[in-house]
Amino acid sequence: MFRTAELGRKVSKEQFQELAPPLRSELLEIQQKLRQMGFPAIVVFAGVDGAGKGESVNLISEWMDPRWIVTRAYGPPSDEERERPEYWRYWRDLPQRGTTGLFLSSWYSRPVLESVYGDPPPGALDRMLDRICVFEKELADDGALVMKFWMHLSKKAQKQRFEQLEKDPHEKWRVTKKDWENWRNYDNFILAAEHTIMRTSHAHALWTIVEGQDERYRSLTVLTALKDAMKRHIAHREAQRPAPKPKPKANGGAPADEGPPSVSLPPLPSLLGSLNNDASLDKKDYQENLQQLRARLNKLYRKAKDKGVSTVLVFEGWDAAGKGGAIRRLTTAMDARGYIVMPVAAPTDEERRYHYLWRFWRHMTRAGRVIIFDRSWYGRVLVERVEGFAQPAEWRRAYAEINDFERQLVEHGTVLAKFWLHITKDEQLARFQAREATPYKRWKLTDEDWRNREKWDQYESAVNDMVQQTSTHIAPWTLVEANCKRYARIKVFETVCNSLEAALKNR
Amino acid sequence: MFRTAELGRKVSKEQFQELAPPLRSELLEIQQKLRQMGFPAIVVFAGVDGAGKGESVNLISEWMDPRWIVTRAYGPPSDEERERPEYWRYWRDLPQRGTTGLFLSSWYSRPVLESVYGDPPPGALDRMLDRICVFEKELADDGALVMKFWMHLSKKAQKQRFEQLEKDPHEKWRVTKKDWENWRNYDNFILAAEHTIMRTSHAHALWTIVEGQDERYRSLTVLTALKDAMKRHIAHREAQRPAPKPKPKANGGAPADEGPPSVSLPPLPSLLGSLNNDASLDKKDYQENLQQLRARLNKLYRKAKDKGVSTVLVFEGWDAAGKGGAIRRLTTAMDARGYIVMPVAAPTDEERRYHYLWRFWRHMTRAGRVIIFDRSWYGRVLVERVEGFAQPAEWRRAYAEINDFERQLVEHGTVLAKFWLHITKDEQLARFQAREATPYKRWKLTDEDWRNREKWDQYESAVNDMVQQTSTHIAPWTLVEANCKRYARIKVFETVCNSLEAALKNR
Repeated sequence: MFRTAELGRKVSKEQFQELAPPLRSELLEIQQKLRQMGFPAIVVFAGVDGAGKGESVNLISEWMDPRWIVTRAYGPPSDEERERPEYWRYWRDLPQRGTTGLFLSSWYSRPVLESVYGDPPPGALDRMLDRICVFEKELADDGALVMKFWMHLSKKAQKQRFEQLEKDPHEKWRVTKKDWENWRNYDNFILAAEHTIMRTSHAHALWTIVEGQDERYRSLTVLTALKDAMKRHIAHREAQRPAPKPKPKANGGAPADEGPPSVSLPPLPSLLGSLNNDASLDKKDYQENLQQLRARLNKLYRKAKDKGVSTVLVFEGWDAAGKGGAIRRLTTAMDARGYIVMPVAAPTDEERRYHYLWRFWRHMTRAGRVIIFDRSWYGRVLVERVEGFAQPAEWRRAYAEINDFERQLVEHGTVLAKFWLHITKDEQLARFQAREATPYKRWKLTDEDWRNREKWDQYESAVNDMVQQTSTHIAPWTLVEANCKRYARIKVFETVCNSLEAALKNR
Repeated sequence: MFRTAELGRKVSKEQFQELAPPLRSELLEIQQKLRQMGFPAIVVFAGVDGAGKGESVNLISEWMDPRWIVTRAYGPPSDEERERPEYWRYWRDLPQRGTTGLFLSSWYSRPVLESVYGDPPPGALDRMLDRICVFEKELADDGALVMKFWMHLSKKAQKQRFEQLEKDPHEKWRVTKKDWENWRNYDNFILAAEHTIMRTSHAHALWTIVEGQDERYRSLTVLTALKDAMKRHIAHREAQRPAPKPKPKANGGAPADEGPPSVSLPPLPSLLGSLNNDASLDKKDYQENLQQLRARLNKLYRKAKDKGVSTVLVFEGWDAAGKGGAIRRLTTAMDARGYIVMPVAAPTDEERRYHYLWRFWRHMTRAGRVIIFDRSWYGRVLVERVEGFAQPAEWRRAYAEINDFERQLVEHGTVLAKFWLHITKDEQLARFQAREATPYKRWKLTDEDWRNREKWDQYESAVNDMVQQTSTHIAPWTLVEANCKRYARIKVFETVCNSLEAALKNR
């Protein structure tokens, strides 16, 4: 879940100076518009110490008109607060309609800290998260924009950040003993954070995970995301309201949404962009590895069958990335009666008559079997999103639905592994051309493949969001560098073996 | 919560024979319409054994076209089912879009039965209910109509029902040992049911509580509610969809929704109608009682103050029912520095800028204080509903919001008592006329009072729904027969004393 925020992304001073002024004017303009709308914006900052929560809040207050912004930060409850139900202080501090509230150390502090340092009785943590869900749902139902930023640093980056502050005599005070204590608990903290984020992620209150290491990158990311969310929410609310009488236009009928183009972030290394596409394996190593892995998987496969442990493998990836080939290699290690390969294309007529998850539920296999999905439920947030088959509200809420679906599988004891097979755009072109040139492969290449290729950037950003929102501790994504097919197949093989081995050990 | 389903309501054979045929045609018509709509209807039946769950399902299947209905009932999971996640069987069994699924002993069985007979570890029950909420939310988000009936019998009525069945040699087999065991656990069962209903009540999946004692009443109630919900959902979905091209009409432009008038239930004794309006108290008894109660309340009030226990009293009732008088009597037993009377009228300009609950949260008092609301947050589901100030979606979801709000108060340790002061329509008229005739009381009577009076029936049905949905084990409504002011004041006084006493004892 946090890997997308550990890429070391940076924005240069020049880029920043170029992008900041128009972004700032756009934000001010949107803020004016928000004032006339009947909803408040509630923006929550949580995350790792040192990742720039406070700085982001300060920057927003600096860039936007502070008269219509309230900032709230919370420490231990006061006497006044302790005498009332816990959420009294949050209700009291809500921003008015038309204004923005920035919340630091808010309702998310307690569940995260208590699960790291406290020893909450069973169920207590989930009850706290429940309370949050109900609270945010009520706000959203009332029309509020609810936005949540998780500011992130890797363990290493956090350590660097603290050390750097400690070197500066003026900044030294910022790093406390408690900060270092938190750092030593980093892994537990991240585990608690992931659980918290997953349980509180809803279409009406999505989390945005921001890499906090580079100040300029972090600032632009937060402010662009804030701007986009506000714009989207205003547009959504306007669409819902009965249209007011149109005002006569001086310029004679230009579309209402005209104006200077909206600012967006420059292309930055994405999660996929950060992969090492040169990873490769020579033929000899490949053959040796494959032979060993096949024996290993077969043993594990039979053991899982005996113990009644089911396995679900999910393959997603670019067209021509080699999903089919990787799957075919895997299945050579299994008994044909014990696995199914399920190719997922557009839903059938019958399937369309149900919830989109229904067609995956129906195929869940019995104990001890293996089911391999060649494309999967992730189509909802990939092709359906990019092609517009699913409405934004639909694919946005699908992240939570999918996480919940996978949680049910894993809690039932199913082994789940998810693969994204990644090739570069150039490599894809080469493979398409090779298919065209080879008569017996030509059927594999369709017009749709070429059309999808044109939307590469949209797919790439959908994939990044998908990994961010659905790569969880219990169901992580494995990103497979697949420019070299041999390398990719071995990585898939190894990952499947390791997952099975770990699951069987825990039985 | 279940009091509205213990009134002994009956429908005569003649009434039934008159109402059934048109209701049946209307249902069939709606079912045809549903088939063309892109959503399924999911209807859950749960409740007390013997209250007519199975019979209702049979009747629906008999009256409607069974080709577009699937009925599902669940026992202990099969081998097939145990090998998959728990909800696999429910996903598998979902009805297609355009059809209706009737679910018996469904996903609600396990949480209720385990909390009565099992000993679930802390938090386990809430996790089960969570799972239900997520499941139903996903279905509703996908467009499904989710409707849930709780079929109810009082403990006494259930016993009678079993005994009656046992007397009949042909029906005897219906009553099992397990049924009697359940009956002996009735109180625990009802407590678990209430918790379950409260936690799973959402605007998109509301519970309807049905009195199951009289077969004809129960049948008409279920089928009318089903019909109304389907109609509402169809209308709602049609409003959301882009309008299809209008078909040319043969009859030249009659409105689309014309047709035979919709069937509705005959007026039946409601919860309010079941009160004994003759309850009264003579002056002497009143004076004696009042003096004793005042001393008792004062003592309790001071004890609560010392212990830091806060009290919230809510007064709702018909215009001129005597809320103010009852409150003034109460406050004579308290120290003016320790209580606040909060009259609630239309929200102020400032309050309108927030969520409707904000203005009540802000007034929550500190430890040891008493706050008395003369009208309250229940305005949302009373005046705002009847006058149309709140949209149906808004007041429908308010029940869950209010229950949650009150749960936070009570879990914090606040004593909460809620009163509905009830007078008959005649008594109200008499009081209005008396106010008109008395110069110093004339100001109390406004045009609005007369307007509200005209909507008596609408208010009455809003009050019945309010009590059904928000009278909970932790925050029950006290219905006060208030035709006799003396009787009402004493009943209020006693209830407040008892609540305080119980709370202080538990400390």
